[in-house]
Amino acid sequence: MEILGGPLYGVAGAGESHGPAITTIVFGCPPGLRISRQGIQRYLDRRRPGSSKHGTPRREQDRLILLSGLYQADTDRLTAGAPIRVGDADQALTVPSYDEGYCSGEPVAALVLSSSKRPQDYEQFAGPEGEVRPGHTDLVKHHQSRGYADPRGGGRSSYRSTISDVIAGSIARIFLREHFRTVILSSICQVGPLKSSLTLADRLEDMQGPGSRSCSPDALENLEDSLEGSEIHTLDPTFARSAAEAIRETRRKGDSLGASIEVAAVNPPPLVGEPLYQSLKLRLMGSLGGLHAVQSCEIGAGSAAVERRGSENNDPIRRSGYQGNRHGGLLGGVTTGSPLICRVGFKPTSSILRPQQSVRKNLKEIEFKLKMGRHDPCVGIRAGITLESRLAIELMNAVLMHQSRRLDLKAHQLF
Amino acid sequence: MEILGGPLYGVAGAGESHGPAITTIVFGCPPGLRISRQGIQRYLDRRRPGSSKHGTPRREQDRLILLSGLYQADTDRLTAGAPIRVGDADQALTVPSYDEGYCSGEPVAALVLSSSKRPQDYEQFAGPEGEVRPGHTDLVKHHQSRGYADPRGGGRSSYRSTISDVIAGSIARIFLREHFRTVILSSICQVGPLKSSLTLADRLEDMQGPGSRSCSPDALENLEDSLEGSEIHTLDPTFARSAAEAIRETRRKGDSLGASIEVAAVNPPPLVGEPLYQSLKLRLMGSLGGLHAVQSCEIGAGSAAVERRGSENNDPIRRSGYQGNRHGGLLGGVTTGSPLICRVGFKPTSSILRPQQSVRKNLKEIEFKLKMGRHDPCVGIRAGITLESRLAIELMNAVLMHQSRRLDLKAHQLF
Amino acid sequence: MEILGGPLYGVAGAGESHGPAITTIVFGCPPGLRISRQGIQRYLDRRRPGSSKHGTPRREQDRLILLSGLYQADTDRLTAGAPIRVGDADQALTVPSYDEGYCSGEPVAALVLSSSKRPQDYEQFAGPEGEVRPGHTDLVKHHQSRGYADPRGGGRSSYRSTISDVIAGSIARIFLREHFRTVILSSICQVGPLKSSLTLADRLEDMQGPGSRSCSPDALENLEDSLEGSEIHTLDPTFARSAAEAIRETRRKGDSLGASIEVAAVNPPPLVGEPLYQSLKLRLMGSLGGLHAVQSCEIGAGSAAVERRGSENNDPIRRSGYQGNRHGGLLGGVTTGSPLICRVGFKPTSSILRPQQSVRKNLKEIEFKLKMGRHDPCVGIRAGITLESRLAIELMNAVLMHQSRRLDLKAHQLF
Amino acid sequence: MEILGGPLYGVAGAGESHGPAITTIVFGCPPGLRISRQGIQRYLDRRRPGSSKHGTPRREQDRLILLSGLYQADTDRLTAGAPIRVGDADQALTVPSYDEGYCSGEPVAALVLSSSKRPQDYEQFAGPEGEVRPGHTDLVKHHQSRGYADPRGGGRSSYRSTISDVIAGSIARIFLREHFRTVILSSICQVGPLKSSLTLADRLEDMQGPGSRSCSPDALENLEDSLEGSEIHTLDPTFARSAAEAIRETRRKGDSLGASIEVAAVNPPPLVGEPLYQSLKLRLMGSLGGLHAVQSCEIGAGSAAVERRGSENNDPIRRSGYQGNRHGGLLGGVTTGSPLICRVGFKPTSSILRPQQSVRKNLKEIEFKLKMGRHDPCVGIRAGITLESRLAIELMNAVLMHQSRRLDLKAHQLF
Repeated sequence: MEILGGPLYGVAGAGESHGPAITTIVFGCPPGLRISRQGIQRYLDRRRPGSSKHGTPRREQDRLILLSGLYQADTDRLTAGAPIRVGDADQALTVPSYDEGYCSGEPVAALVLSSSKRPQDYEQFAGPEGEVRPGHTDLVKHHQSRGYADPRGGGRSSYRSTISDVIAGSIARIFLREHFRTVILSSICQVGPLKSSLTLADRLEDMQGPGSRSCSPDALENLEDSLEGSEIHTLDPTFARSAAEAIRETRRKGDSLGASIEVAAVNPPPLVGEPLYQSLKLRLMGSLGGLHAVQSCEIGAGSAAVERRGSENNDPIRRSGYQGNRHGGLLGGVTTGSPLICRVGFKPTSSILRPQQSVRKNLKEIEFKLKMGRHDPCVGIRAGITLESRLAIELMNAVLMHQSRRLDLKAHQLF
Repeated sequence: MEILGGPLYGVAGAGESHGPAITTIVFGCPPGLRISRQGIQRYLDRRRPGSSKHGTPRREQDRLILLSGLYQADTDRLTAGAPIRVGDADQALTVPSYDEGYCSGEPVAALVLSSSKRPQDYEQFAGPEGEVRPGHTDLVKHHQSRGYADPRGGGRSSYRSTISDVIAGSIARIFLREHFRTVILSSICQVGPLKSSLTLADRLEDMQGPGSRSCSPDALENLEDSLEGSEIHTLDPTFARSAAEAIRETRRKGDSLGASIEVAAVNPPPLVGEPLYQSLKLRLMGSLGGLHAVQSCEIGAGSAAVERRGSENNDPIRRSGYQGNRHGGLLGGVTTGSPLICRVGFKPTSSILRPQQSVRKNLKEIEFKLKMGRHDPCVGIRAGITLESRLAIELMNAVLMHQSRRLDLKAHQLF
Repeated sequence: MEILGGPLYGVAGAGESHGPAITTIVFGCPPGLRISRQGIQRYLDRRRPGSSKHGTPRREQDRLILLSGLYQADTDRLTAGAPIRVGDADQALTVPSYDEGYCSGEPVAALVLSSSKRPQDYEQFAGPEGEVRPGHTDLVKHHQSRGYADPRGGGRSSYRSTISDVIAGSIARIFLREHFRTVILSSICQVGPLKSSLTLADRLEDMQGPGSRSCSPDALENLEDSLEGSEIHTLDPTFARSAAEAIRETRRKGDSLGASIEVAAVNPPPLVGEPLYQSLKLRLMGSLGGLHAVQSCEIGAGSAAVERRGSENNDPIRRSGYQGNRHGGLLGGVTTGSPLICRVGFKPTSSILRPQQSVRKNLKEIEFKLKMGRHDPCVGIRAGITLESRLAIELMNAVLMHQSRRLDLKAHQLF
Repeated sequence: MEILGGPLYGVAGAGESHGPAITTIVFGCPPGLRISRQGIQRYLDRRRPGSSKHGTPRREQDRLILLSGLYQADTDRLTAGAPIRVGDADQALTVPSYDEGYCSGEPVAALVLSSSKRPQDYEQFAGPEGEVRPGHTDLVKHHQSRGYADPRGGGRSSYRSTISDVIAGSIARIFLREHFRTVILSSICQVGPLKSSLTLADRLEDMQGPGSRSCSPDALENLEDSLEGSEIHTLDPTFARSAAEAIRETRRKGDSLGASIEVAAVNPPPLVGEPLYQSLKLRLMGSLGGLHAVQSCEIGAGSAAVERRGSENNDPIRRSGYQGNRHGGLLGGVTTGSPLICRVGFKPTSSILRPQQSVRKNLKEIEFKLKMGRHDPCVGIRAGITLESRLAIELMNAVLMHQSRRLDLKAHQLF
């Protein structure tokens, strides 16, 4: 079943690139957590095509509609969301959607309609004679489904499915921030061969006070603002400029570029994470490493740890905490309180305008040339928010798992 | 997580009684299965309040909107469903919904808006001073959620949540009927103290040919028609009349009645069902027995088997099949091909107009009197379709589980 | 996967009737819970064939071996369990097993070897010419597995698999008793046509003080002792005598009898249980109703509720609690604090000595006569402990689920 | 719950480093698959400490005992495994274990006793004054469990837990090899700063015939033999020698080294793998990337893809298959039939003999010096078999998931 996270906090998603909508159900939102449409929309806006000038030219409004799981006594404020109407004018039904309220503990459902669809862009790919885009799922999904897959825009395999990830991630990070001051960030650190000279891991190390291992809320807020203000969501303004130029240049050539992103949870709740087979490390490597177009995932020192000796790689421990973060915030899959840090590598966007060798779905060989269609020349540019969201979902689930083992008898008082 | 069925075929649901909508995601619809909005709407109409003259006076349109998981090359027919509009006129977005297509194998999402809400009906129950309806979840849900539960109409505990069950059940029964000629039926066999003189179990026994254990499609269709035409969805017209009269009488008195329903899958696929801890018997007893207001669930001979001797209760076996169906179509949790038969007992509707002893949510004692609100005097009247749906979901999942153990190498041909 | 309960507290089981052992892994035992081999063995002894003079003559030692998930600093006491030796004398490896310790939070594994096996008893059933016992899984399991099922003693479908249920249930009830004074009991209330004149539901009602809804520990201990001392684990000594006589008489005739059992959790933790699709009612109906040979399961008033009017069936509520327990301790699948009460109906044992019409596995018709083999003339006699165990497992899981929603920041203190 | 893989093929494990045994239950073994103790033991022997001269000096016999889920008519051959005895001589029970048989479809349980334990090695770490080994889970597991974790040898976090992975992986690879000629291999490609000059990815590319994308069974067998014969399980003999020397040198210095391993499934079944949230890519990245001591996981071109342009990175497609394997055998999480290839990076072993800054569990600062204990100077040396096993488990589960969507009506024939 199409569930990300869980068993306590997780999200179910549905919807294809060119279908009517992406539908999302979030499970496990703690009763009493206050959320608003705007608080989630803010993150959805970062995911949206068109939100970056270097992303796809596709423009989507991606307006969030909340449909369940919230309540507050002031039902006027509760139901101040945009109205939904179903049916034609003469026999339509219109209902208001939710704007703001407290989680009731029941599943939170959300809808995002898909506005900008040009079916003619995808006629090239339809049916058994449809052409196969190299690097995409067209061929395998067609044969796996015996021809019934939706060929429009990659169907469900479209990056548009990550709307569900971001909605669930947003609720999780609101919870984590409120209770633990956890802040989740990402920074692009490589675009094609260009590398950032600053890393998030180093910056966070610098931000910690000498006697303390946590980062101040103010400093984190500044860091967030500076990342959001950056041209390509990176710490390093020099790198941002050269990467942006490389992307523009690559787009002109009809080609594409890979990218690498650091993602971090700062001030994560310590001591959460299951052991072994469901460890938080396993879950994060899967969730981040399993995202569209990802080819590599690292935690802490990552592949650089291979070259080190144990005496260099073990982080010393003092009363104030771990003196270094080569472990990346996880030991044995349990959080240490140091920032949780991953680095994720994306392949260059598969859709390019240059001619390529390919086949039709029936395996007839062709010289493939993409006729039309919108796409990102560098998928990494937009992916940070999704990585942040997936990290938040897994961290949230781990917190609830850990809480389940703490017995609070007051939770059972009725009469 | 709010999932019914699974892990291969299951449904996630969200939405409260008085919220904007019930949202549903169905997982595991086999690629290539043709479904239409109308094919599902037909079953939803049976569930709808107001569909029976003996049910609640609440009127809901319960119009099904399909949002994902379908495709066909003729996208005009695919997208011939009702349009959905989000936002106010000046900045609205309108998209068409799906009407008919083949399952792509991806999750099928569906939306049903909630039209008929009168919030003033439920002011009596809001807040910590809110009154507690005996027999309802008001008190426990309030304290379990520390006051954050949605009090309107029972919130998520409302019977309205079963829209999701019916949508998923409908797709399952379309599949089961197409491939196995499986037909799923129910018949009310008791209302209060009044009992039907005909049982579905006996009728199905009679319908089987002497040398065969399966029922003819024509005979089953007639049986379905006769049940759907019945005043209260029962085989027995005499019983239907007296039960209908008893319900009217009880409604006049402001009281309510229990009911008992037989539900059956005729011509079920043989040999499906997991062993022991996930056995189809365990799953069915849970899914049917766990429905709102249910207090008992029986399979086959049910509690009557207790009084029998083994020599009376074992069904003899001949080359043509089991000669009797005291086992109810399941042995060791595996289907034998005999009709799968359960009987489910519902308590009388908890909402009554008579005064009762109760408390406020803060435990202050009160003399409770229901002020307003719509309700069924006998919840059993509408429950048959939900039981049928839950049976279909579990049976479908069991078929897929069984198939997973049959290796078909042709399923792996690509190049 | 063969998992009972979960996702937080659950048990995985493996092992066939005539295989070397039943293997059990229990997940979710809370760190710090003290358990001992003897504390679990006590319940296993109640399950064991031969523990009742009315059960099967098969004698099994059913000695519990604990292999993981426990620890205490005094490793001598920790490892004071029976030694296990693997291999022949000359190259054997012997290790001690665990006797007593604190749960570490890691999975608890347990082994119970199977001693008393007479393979010649089951030659009648082996291979494609093997005979099919009416009422058993022989035929369906053979064809479902394409001939690879273990035919000896019913293979995995044997009641012997319930050893895993009892081990997991024992740990759960130790936890529930320690923290909530919850006591889990069962009483046989019907054997064939004979009914007990006392019910557990009534007795528990009587035991509650006038101003209180909970039962005193002393009174409960007396009740437990009296049930364990009873000839057939029932409250009613007169019924016990006549039922025992009926069982003896039935055994002489080579026939078998059904039975019905009440099972209850007294002083259950209030406010636990998920809503709807994973509700505690759904889980209990499935887990209890899905046990071997069960044909019916009822909660609270059960099928008797069908005949009642709402004004009779709703339990009044006062400041001290629910004034009656027709709801059986659950409303909307959430515990109210009133005793959780179910009644479960078992069919008569399928194995009888009388001749019956049957087939071979290849469907050749035969006159079937059981040649040898040990069996219970009334499976209900031994089933109470398994029902109690399954109830404990589900209740324990529900407690942990509820706790997961209570945030205790102290659980995250490290540095 | 401690489950790896699933929902159709998965494994539950239990057992700590210094406990009596590792207990394993494997779910979803297809009925009819023939397995033998020896066929699994062969892989367990590769995992065993002491199996490599460069691994830990700890010597374990790791003798596999099979306890359930197998059957064959020749019960003498079935039960020809080593005998297990429980209890002291005077009241012991001895049963034979399984040696060889066909999977019945029921769970396969296995036991591996732990022989070589020297508790005095770990006194240094016990109790609240116990010392914390940098890089290990000692501190977080102690506080997460509120002091109840088993401190001996890392408790459940020990690498010894991977016995369960290897047992389940072995059964999976027997199935995959039998039906698809799938062969699963690994090769160490880096030890500390030393890199192999040959990669498994390149070698497999070379082994494919010009018109075909599959590798011949003979060539694969030779490759397997050469890997198993290698001093450190690598393709490159020159690298093997220098890496072995580096490991010896590092051991002398009391320090440790990281390593990197390529793992591949050659001739994998095409078209398997779920979409998106449970995609085979997500599952593999999690399962391989979540193993003890892993800090990075890559698929196909891995992090090298970041630097490429799309026109370089997309693999061309011809009628015969993908002309290159930068995609690593997965597109959109679905297998293409090209070898599935991952590369996994391990940190240097955390246990070193050099002094380090650390704390006691109560956070008192200490200069930490490991007193005794056995360990690998380079954990990567033994990890290949576990990576292969985890890959096999996920691939097997994906095959069963794919099969579940293919309807074979013959699977339902009974009467």
